[in-house]
Amino acid sequence: MENGNQGIPENANKHCPGPQSESAGKADACAGCPNQQICATTPKGPDPGLLKGKVPSCGGGGDFGDTMLVMGHLIFLSDLVAIMERMATVKHKILVLSGKGGVGKSTFSAQLSFALADMDHQVGLLDIDICGPSIPKMLGLEGQDIHQSNLGWSPVYLESNLGVMSIGFMLPDPNEAVIWRGPRKNGLIKQFLKDVHWGELDYLVVDAPPGTSDEHISIVQFLQATGMDGAIIVTTPQQVSLIDVRKEISFCKKVGIQVLGVVENMSGFRQSISNLKFAKLSEAGDESNATEWALSYIKTNAPELLSAIACSDVFDDSRGGAAKMCMELGVPFLGKVPLDPQLCRAAEEGRSCFADQKCSASAPALRRIIKKLVAA
Amino acid sequence: MENGNQGIPENANKHCPGPQSESAGKADACAGCPNQQICATTPKGPDPGLLKGKVPSCGGGGDFGDTMLVMGHLIFLSDLVAIMERMATVKHKILVLSGKGGVGKSTFSAQLSFALADMDHQVGLLDIDICGPSIPKMLGLEGQDIHQSNLGWSPVYLESNLGVMSIGFMLPDPNEAVIWRGPRKNGLIKQFLKDVHWGELDYLVVDAPPGTSDEHISIVQFLQATGMDGAIIVTTPQQVSLIDVRKEISFCKKVGIQVLGVVENMSGFRQSISNLKFAKLSEAGDESNATEWALSYIKTNAPELLSAIACSDVFDDSRGGAAKMCMELGVPFLGKVPLDPQLCRAAEEGRSCFADQKCSASAPALRRIIKKLVAA
Repeated sequence: MENGNQGIPENANKHCPGPQSESAGKADACAGCPNQQICATTPKGPDPGLLKGKVPSCGGGGDFGDTMLVMGHLIFLSDLVAIMERMATVKHKILVLSGKGGVGKSTFSAQLSFALADMDHQVGLLDIDICGPSIPKMLGLEGQDIHQSNLGWSPVYLESNLGVMSIGFMLPDPNEAVIWRGPRKNGLIKQFLKDVHWGELDYLVVDAPPGTSDEHISIVQFLQATGMDGAIIVTTPQQVSLIDVRKEISFCKKVGIQVLGVVENMSGFRQSISNLKFAKLSEAGDESNATEWALSYIKTNAPELLSAIACSDVFDDSRGGAAKMCMELGVPFLGKVPLDPQLCRAAEEGRSCFADQKCSASAPALRRIIKKLVAA
Repeated sequence: MENGNQGIPENANKHCPGPQSESAGKADACAGCPNQQICATTPKGPDPGLLKGKVPSCGGGGDFGDTMLVMGHLIFLSDLVAIMERMATVKHKILVLSGKGGVGKSTFSAQLSFALADMDHQVGLLDIDICGPSIPKMLGLEGQDIHQSNLGWSPVYLESNLGVMSIGFMLPDPNEAVIWRGPRKNGLIKQFLKDVHWGELDYLVVDAPPGTSDEHISIVQFLQATGMDGAIIVTTPQQVSLIDVRKEISFCKKVGIQVLGVVENMSGFRQSISNLKFAKLSEAGDESNATEWALSYIKTNAPELLSAIACSDVFDDSRGGAAKMCMELGVPFLGKVPLDPQLCRAAEEGRSCFADQKCSASAPALRRIIKKLVAA
């Protein structure tokens, strides 16, 4: 940064004209510079048309030298150039969103990554939930560390074709709260995009926290210019969750992200009768364990029941659930995944639900959804 | 604000010495001023000992005129005075937190408020989830508006002793995303505390979004000085949720909020056999509805089963769940609430689960927890 212009990347050639110069990437001085191609193709100067004004309540405008106006916020061109350089080797970028938390978004992101890696794709999974990172646990990678090389931060690899990055790998004590306001969270997200050496990727899956605030604005700000495929939105059939999904779809429309589709998770509880437990209530309302009695009673008197599956609509979907909402809003409905205790257990244990037959109630549904996504 | 001192409340007497003056509330000019008592009792000037330094990564210090350093952030004394004035008529202030979303925090906050109101307490329920407010729906108050009077913003009243405030009442379109970064969210939370006319309250229940970020820092910043009872933390037995609860407890300890206790929600699925649905799998793996067959088969061959309750650990709690974690961390465990489809339905429909017998699997558990809280 010899000329004090923060827009010039540190690894730039001498006499760099600056990435926002009209001759960026084309000047004689650019020959052989690692940033040459990106500089030649990056939009120059503040481009109010790029994203500005798509998000309401963000003001600003004008010429700010080596910064650029993206979604009404100024970001340094050098940051954008560094991010575009990292993302130049990533074919597909998919954001996984949810309106509410606890709908199984991280479980879905994890299983999507497992499935894509199983299909022999090169996969990166980036967890941008700073205050509550679940991804390390859901991939069985708790306690792992991030290593740094001259290429940048190295993701933690579960398989040679499945790399993972999360703040969870950086915390000295997993029980310690990360009490960060927005700007600090945004800074880390920028670093994840600038400094992580993913290498060649077929898919980068980004697991976002619930809502539509700092993390979401930042990831879109930073990734939009690099070409994102779009967002998958995960919900439950509950009305409270669907209300928030509508907000999430509204967010995507406002910031110009394509909605790849909506997944309805926890879509009814199901478990084989033989795996259920049973209780009995006394007349006084006290409950006692009746599992042993019930299973032997069923075996003796109603054995055909043992091969049946017990189902229950945990969340009322009498108003049509996610499928109806998608029709209304004109976004694709990707499918339903039942509330399968075995899938919950796989997530807790950091296992792929596709590796064995345990998740027979949920894995086929997930596989159908992922096939639709990859085919699209 | 004739002297340009922003520390002086707008409704102050003429010649107000300023709320941080040593003579605040005691000077002749203070006689009859609505702020007199608060000014006389508010700590004066920046008090680095109040909360500063309890939250890591927050710097700052020194004398900033009419501002005050709370948890490392500057807030205007006039704001603090206005909040203390509003909160002077509120006996108990309880924060409801969760590490992860979707664990039933808002359902718990809503049912806690219903229960306290049933006990003839005067109750206020404040929803500070700005991006995903669920409280209006969970109290059956969707589409209601907030009214303004010369006393401030009026909560929406469900009963004469149960008032509710949420950004959900302020949105012209409930489907529209609220795409706000932290500072704007903090501003609204401050307004909720400064401008809402709750009147005399026995309990103010504050429903927070999941995590430990802007909303949480702000609410603690603003309420701490007014005397909070403490926080209830809601979780599921899942390990991923418990990991985040540890962070939430760490947050409470760092900012000096008492943990009133932890509630384990969705603690196993339970439903009476007669309310279950059934399915059968063909050899090819196709599923067919077998509810009619199964119920008549049970009636004929195993009728005693109809009075039993089917149970399942949806979330694996083999590692001890919330009770064990509470023991480890030395915080009270308040109890378990089962995953009851009828409670989910009550929440969706904005009903109290205590009003009838439908939620027989969950309401007694909730009632026991709330009794413990009130007795404490």
